[in-house]
Amino acid sequence: MHIRILVTGGTFDKEYDELAGRLFFRDTHVREMLTLGRARLDLEIETAMMIDSLDMDEAGRAAIVARCRAAAERAIVVTHGTDTMVETAGALAAAGLTDKTIVLTGAMVPYAFGSSDGLFNLGSALSFVQVLAPGVYIAMNGRHFRWDQVRKNRETGVFEPLEA
Amino acid sequence: MHIRILVTGGTFDKEYDELAGRLFFRDTHVREMLTLGRARLDLEIETAMMIDSLDMDEAGRAAIVARCRAAAERAIVVTHGTDTMVETAGALAAAGLTDKTIVLTGAMVPYAFGSSDGLFNLGSALSFVQVLAPGVYIAMNGRHFRWDQVRKNRETGVFEPLEA
Amino acid sequence: MHIRILVTGGTFDKEYDELAGRLFFRDTHVREMLTLGRARLDLEIETAMMIDSLDMDEAGRAAIVARCRAAAERAIVVTHGTDTMVETAGALAAAGLTDKTIVLTGAMVPYAFGSSDGLFNLGSALSFVQVLAPGVYIAMNGRHFRWDQVRKNRETGVFEPLEA
Amino acid sequence: MHIRILVTGGTFDKEYDELAGRLFFRDTHVREMLTLGRARLDLEIETAMMIDSLDMDEAGRAAIVARCRAAAERAIVVTHGTDTMVETAGALAAAGLTDKTIVLTGAMVPYAFGSSDGLFNLGSALSFVQVLAPGVYIAMNGRHFRWDQVRKNRETGVFEPLEA
Repeated sequence: MHIRILVTGGTFDKEYDELAGRLFFRDTHVREMLTLGRARLDLEIETAMMIDSLDMDEAGRAAIVARCRAAAERAIVVTHGTDTMVETAGALAAAGLTDKTIVLTGAMVPYAFGSSDGLFNLGSALSFVQVLAPGVYIAMNGRHFRWDQVRKNRETGVFEPLEA
Repeated sequence: MHIRILVTGGTFDKEYDELAGRLFFRDTHVREMLTLGRARLDLEIETAMMIDSLDMDEAGRAAIVARCRAAAERAIVVTHGTDTMVETAGALAAAGLTDKTIVLTGAMVPYAFGSSDGLFNLGSALSFVQVLAPGVYIAMNGRHFRWDQVRKNRETGVFEPLEA
Repeated sequence: MHIRILVTGGTFDKEYDELAGRLFFRDTHVREMLTLGRARLDLEIETAMMIDSLDMDEAGRAAIVARCRAAAERAIVVTHGTDTMVETAGALAAAGLTDKTIVLTGAMVPYAFGSSDGLFNLGSALSFVQVLAPGVYIAMNGRHFRWDQVRKNRETGVFEPLEA
Repeated sequence: MHIRILVTGGTFDKEYDELAGRLFFRDTHVREMLTLGRARLDLEIETAMMIDSLDMDEAGRAAIVARCRAAAERAIVVTHGTDTMVETAGALAAAGLTDKTIVLTGAMVPYAFGSSDGLFNLGSALSFVQVLAPGVYIAMNGRHFRWDQVRKNRETGVFEPLEA
């Protein structure tokens, strides 16, 4: 199975700019995370954008949809900021890519800061994407959710199932 | 879904004894790994033993089988040293626990040493166990393998599919 | 020899607020850094304030001077943001605490982010303060400088001797 | 001031061999530690040997003495395993290198394991070596000791002053 990882930024990939004392984006850390995880998967990494998900707009979502549509792979992991991850999942679902399994994941703490959930989430998302049926999902907190059955609780930072 | 994590030791849980200058076992790190991963799973952690998998013998394997059989959960992750993980998977398969999904995982580098594959593997194993059909599997290197279709390559440390 | 560590904040002690996605201050990390460094020094830790050194004003500097003056110890390490560390060193020198050795130090990267210079700098500052003659010094980059013979190069983040 | 760092191994530089599951030596980590510490010192790093200090013998000590004697620098930091650090300090003192300041340091936990005292100790030793009078010293636990006034407490791992 061939897997594509589509990088869009988010907390996952933030770094600390020691001269400016600010968080910023440089390159994705996905490659070094896969090395650390000793991943032996047949995969392609593509950086679509490097932005805070609070800055994700319709044009950004359209670009993500277009890249997922264009991808040869039927299994795609999208790394994404957590704040608007559910909205992007909705845009992907609306696009009707019915033969693909797309799993969005992210992190609450930047991977570069040492004590991050990112490595756990990446291992989780890459596993779910290999076995879930086609559809759009979010993998966070060790769980997976269908795109329309989840919300981020902003008080706790936890992804929760929507009440039925 | 309720998940049981059965801890048996392995590199995953090794620590450095700074007075003796040796590796040793104390308590499992699984709880702090789940906290770091912000896991929100309904799970139970049980420590069966804390041993190097080179010291795993038939009595040890029988104890693991007995605990999996006794577990109320249908989803079980077993943390285990990598050297004899495949043998323990075989013992679990031979036990015929046909209604349970059992996923074994481990690490090449101790979690306590900072640059470990353990967190990635734990995220992976916990994800696979939620979606795979009943059976016995190994989750390493971002992949899952049926118990009888995998070997550890001791030159590279990588888990590989058996040649057909 | 009794040593006082006076904490004022700075990058040294910044943390990542995972809900807001921002850097912030909570408690100082000096105690856990001393534990990690296995320090066995007779010392007192006092938090004067927890601020970014860009927000340090005359009132803040006066408070630092007052606390150093009031301290029973003749050896004091002040943790401080790097941007205005030299100015605070000047205020301390102007106070004429002629029987005390005061060493200011800080960090370019927060200790909490794993890849920090903070532990190195703390080891350095605590060592210099034990052996330097009374006076006000800055300890950064493995070096020590008299308060009036140093500047922070803002392009490189390095503390440099003033040209003679 | 020019400083020489003479590397001899010890816990400081141990690594984990993930295929053999053993601790071993490869290259020294001193360079990356200095980079992490943003050290801007005029220094030379020389690897004399890479051994566990329990394996240090008279020939090894003679080699360390010879290299310190041959060094052009008057300030030398020797990284060394903690178990026999005091004995090597004694050999250096017996050599009568009366114009040099030599500071031995080490670590209780390997730098490569993330939670090490090594970075703190290196910052400390490099600071002491710049300001102490000629002589042979041990820098551990944030303190410095004359070579003949210290012992390692093997129960606690702490370097302590000898009773007067």
